[in-house]
This record gives sequence, structure tokens and C-alpha cells, in this order.
Amino acid sequence: MSQTKPVIIVHGGAKTISEDKVEANHAGCRAAALAGWSVLAQGGSAAEAVEAAIRVLESDQTFNAGFGSTLNSEGEVEVDAAIMDGATLSWGAVAAVQGVRHPIAAARRIMEEKPRLLVARSGERFALEHGLEMCAKKDLISEEQYEEWKEDVEVLDRPNTVGCVALDINGNLAAGTSTGGTNGQPQGRVGDTALVGCGLYADNRLGGCSTTGDGESIIPVVLAKSAIDALAGGRHPDEAAQQAIATLQSRVEGEAGCILIDCQGRIGWAYNSEDMAVAYMNEELSEPATFTGKEQPLAAA
Amino acid sequence: MSQTKPVIIVHGGAKTISEDKVEANHAGCRAAALAGWSVLAQGGSAAEAVEAAIRVLESDQTFNAGFGSTLNSEGEVEVDAAIMDGATLSWGAVAAVQGVRHPIAAARRIMEEKPRLLVARSGERFALEHGLEMCAKKDLISEEQYEEWKEDVEVLDRPNTVGCVALDINGNLAAGTSTGGTNGQPQGRVGDTALVGCGLYADNRLGGCSTTGDGESIIPVVLAKSAIDALAGGRHPDEAAQQAIATLQSRVEGEAGCILIDCQGRIGWAYNSEDMAVAYMNEELSEPATFTGKEQPLAAA
Repeated sequence: MSQTKPVIIVHGGAKTISEDKVEANHAGCRAAALAGWSVLAQGGSAAEAVEAAIRVLESDQTFNAGFGSTLNSEGEVEVDAAIMDGATLSWGAVAAVQGVRHPIAAARRIMEEKPRLLVARSGERFALEHGLEMCAKKDLISEEQYEEWKEDVEVLDRPNTVGCVALDINGNLAAGTSTGGTNGQPQGRVGDTALVGCGLYADNRLGGCSTTGDGESIIPVVLAKSAIDALAGGRHPDEAAQQAIATLQSRVEGEAGCILIDCQGRIGWAYNSEDMAVAYMNEELSEPATFTGKEQPLAAA
Repeated sequence: MSQTKPVIIVHGGAKTISEDKVEANHAGCRAAALAGWSVLAQGGSAAEAVEAAIRVLESDQTFNAGFGSTLNSEGEVEVDAAIMDGATLSWGAVAAVQGVRHPIAAARRIMEEKPRLLVARSGERFALEHGLEMCAKKDLISEEQYEEWKEDVEVLDRPNTVGCVALDINGNLAAGTSTGGTNGQPQGRVGDTALVGCGLYADNRLGGCSTTGDGESIIPVVLAKSAIDALAGGRHPDEAAQQAIATLQSRVEGEAGCILIDCQGRIGWAYNSEDMAVAYMNEELSEPATFTGKEQPLAAA
């Protein structure tokens, strides 16, 4: 069987990126894309690559996932993550969990064992019982996020959900997402990130998608599934992404972004936020292409 | 403005209905449809009718929602519910909550306040703070479910998720679902019921849908949104429902059912389980039509 050319795309959130954080966003997305690419280049699976890339973003306090997540109303880091496999439509998700170092690893482990969404203590218990890296709840709190929560300041460059889509040499797609939610959210609020169809979707017949943005707007338009459905008939992923974001904007006035890889390995992305951090890598590039926006962001969507 | 002819359809789960429970399923669905119909006939909103109908099903131990829910691994009743408004795409949901008498009421109250999915203690806190009826956790446990859990018996006629779709005189659609999950599920496992796109969807432009069945199969095919999308081009709701269930069966070998009302007020439903409890009511009927199956259940879907 001929091998598929692997591709990976990651995002660090649809958001406003202040001048002093541009470099950190480029560097973080670049490192994540490289970590995932290294898996794909060695013949690893798309799901493995997605986990590897998102682990890097979860470890980097520039992004709102894992360490450095925004704090909830109680001043805690409480996170959601999910992953989906386009070959089998298998999936796994955790939501409203604390003290799990890499929520994306818990989601992937659930997917491998038995697809389920496990929330709160249930997700934490699963991670602990399966030997995943646990930590003190406070170990996920960065100084910057703590200060912002304590002062309750209005911050324009609030970080946002991260995600990744990968296509491996066997032609399999996977998509994943990870988030700390929204700043000051009620304890136990779960956004789109953990929800298949909303925060992520992967189907080898069409493509894979990861979204980022206002969860309560992403959910009612089932954004990731809508973007994937828009790939039907061979539509280019850039166009499908734009169409999905335009629908979100017109139906619920939401702000979001999404990244896509179609089953031919073509990439696409769109957003209607100020900026969006993105990186992608394929065999034709010597290193990842990184962005904090498109030259021509989605106009009048 | 001319008034729309109201319609309501409820389901008491896609499942196996043993001979001794046929009558209780007919009676329960009939009472639920009447409760919702009474709201619609007086000019009430679709969302109000959906809540009224589902409250009846939640109070009836024949069905797996509210009182009489199946018990989780810890022997507790832990429930999920959600509602969506087709006019605004607004929605509300609770998951993994205990001691809330009518989870559908909590979901509707969240929808009215600010769309969110609130899990575990967070959902319970919301219900308490908003003056909804609370009860002791054990008050939701029926004797039959407790006995089955205690004995860990294999039961063929396990109850399943309930739901409702309504169209009001203003032409607005709403859909809702409520469930006790699956018997012996891990504490904190959340199925499709609370997830917009999977367990329910409503969009005045196309229709409303509520699903029931194996959550872990319903989620990866985003069943409710898929059924609604299948209404495009004026396809009949029966056909759209069949198409969605056929996709679920072919892609993930799942077992489920769904009920639909399209924006013209036509109803439809399909299932690939042994039986399915359904009732519907409109102006042409003197009392609800009730079913525990279709004469010709979905053949070779």
C-alpha cells in the first residue's frame, strides 16, 4: 500500500495576541508542530502525534491548557480535553478535571480503553488509576494567570483553547483539543472543547477539525462537525473553515477559529477573532510555518 | 401573523419493552404528550411544552430519567438533561447531577439565564440557587432499579433516555432530553443526552430532534444534528430519521432511536432497537397516538 504524505497543524487559540506575546505564540506552536511531526515522520499514528503536540502546548504557559490555564471562579485550574480518531470514529474526553498534568493524555487513554466522557472526580480517578502523571492542583497555576484572577482585571489578550489535527502515513486522521476554559468560569462549567462535534471531529472519509473560541457559541452550531461536513464534494479546507466560521457569526454572533486537514492532506483554517496562533508542517517544509494571523483574515464573513 | 398548528412528540426510549411493561409505556408517553399539548393548546412556548412533557416522564418510574433512573456504579441516581430552542439556538444542560427532582427544569432555567453545560456539583448548585425542587439523592431511587442494581442482574428491558420535540403556535421549535444514564455506569460518565448535536438539536429553519440509545455510539455520529441536516431540501422527517439511524448503524454499529418534527410540523421517527415508546399529539387527534414500535420497524438499515 502506498504511504500517505503526513501533515500536522496545531493552533494556540483564536484570540487577541498582544505585541509582547507574538514571539511566544510562534515559538510555542512551532515546538508543538515539531513534536507531533517527529511522531509522524517516524511512522507514528495521527492520535499519537496529536497527543505529542498538545502535550507541548499544555506545558507552555503561553496557552490556555494544562499549566497556565485561566482560573475558574474559585481560583482553580479546571480543564477539559478530547481526542477523536478518524479511522474508527473512536473518541475520549475529560471535563472539569483538576490535578491531571496532561488532560490530552487522559482523553487518549479513555479513547483506547472505551469511548466515554468522564467529568470531574471521575476523570481524575481514571487518570490516577491508569498511571497518568498527576500533580498538585496548584502546580497548574501560572503566576500570570493567578495575578489576573486575583485582580479580576480585564485582559484583552486572554489565552484560548489549543488543538491539533494530524494525518499519518497510513492515511488516518486524528483531532484533539485541550483547554482551561474561560477566566472566572463557574466551577463545573464545561465548554465545547470536550464535546465531539463541537470542539473537534475526525472522519477519514472527509477530514479532521479542531476549534477554539467562545464555547457557548461553538456548541449550538456544532462547529467542528459543520466544518467537516462542508468538506463534502472536495471543497478546499480553507473554504470549509471560512464557511463554518461565517455560519457561527451569522447564526449566533460567536467568535471562534478552526483548523482543518482534509482526507487528501490539504490544510485550511479560518477565524473571526483578532488573531489566531497556528503552525503546520509537512514533508515540503524544512521547519514549521507559523502564524499569528492570516494576511487576509476572514473578511465580512 | 397566521398561527402555526402546534405539534408535540415524546419518546420513552429506544429499548426492549417486555410484555408486562407495554401498558405502562403507552400510559406514560400518553400522559407526557398531553401535559405538553396542554401548554401548546393554550398558546405556551415550545420550550415550556417540552419541559412539561419531560417532567411527566421524569416522575414516572417506567422511564430512565429523574425518579426511577438506573443506578451508577456507586448505587446512585446521577442524571443528565438538556434543552434547545430552535428560534435562537439557545440551549442549557446539566450532567452528572444528583438530588435535582426535575433535571429538565434545571436545563431550561440555564438556557434562559445563559447557555451553559454545568456538571456535577455545579449543576446542583445552580438548581438550588434558582429555587428548583431539590430532594434527597435516595428519593430518586425506585425499588425496581435498586433491586436490579443490587443483584447486578442482566435485564433485557432496561429503560432508556426520554425526550420531546414540540412546535408552538408561533412556529418555534424546541427539543429536550433527560436520562439516568446506563446501569452501573461509572460515577461521572456523561452520555449524549446533555450534548447539543448528539442528544438533541433544534433549529427553526429545519426542525427539532431528540435521540435515545447507546450514548457512546450516538456521540461520534453527532446523531441529532445529522438527523436535522438530513431534513434539508424538504426531506420527510421519517426518512431523515431513518437515514440518521442507518448512518449510526453502518458507521459505529450503534443502537438508537430518534424523534423529529420539521419546520412544517411534520413528524417522523426511527429506531433500530427492538422497540421504542413514542406518543404524539396534534389538533387533528382527540387524544395522543401512542406506540411501542412501528408496524414496520426500520428494515435492514
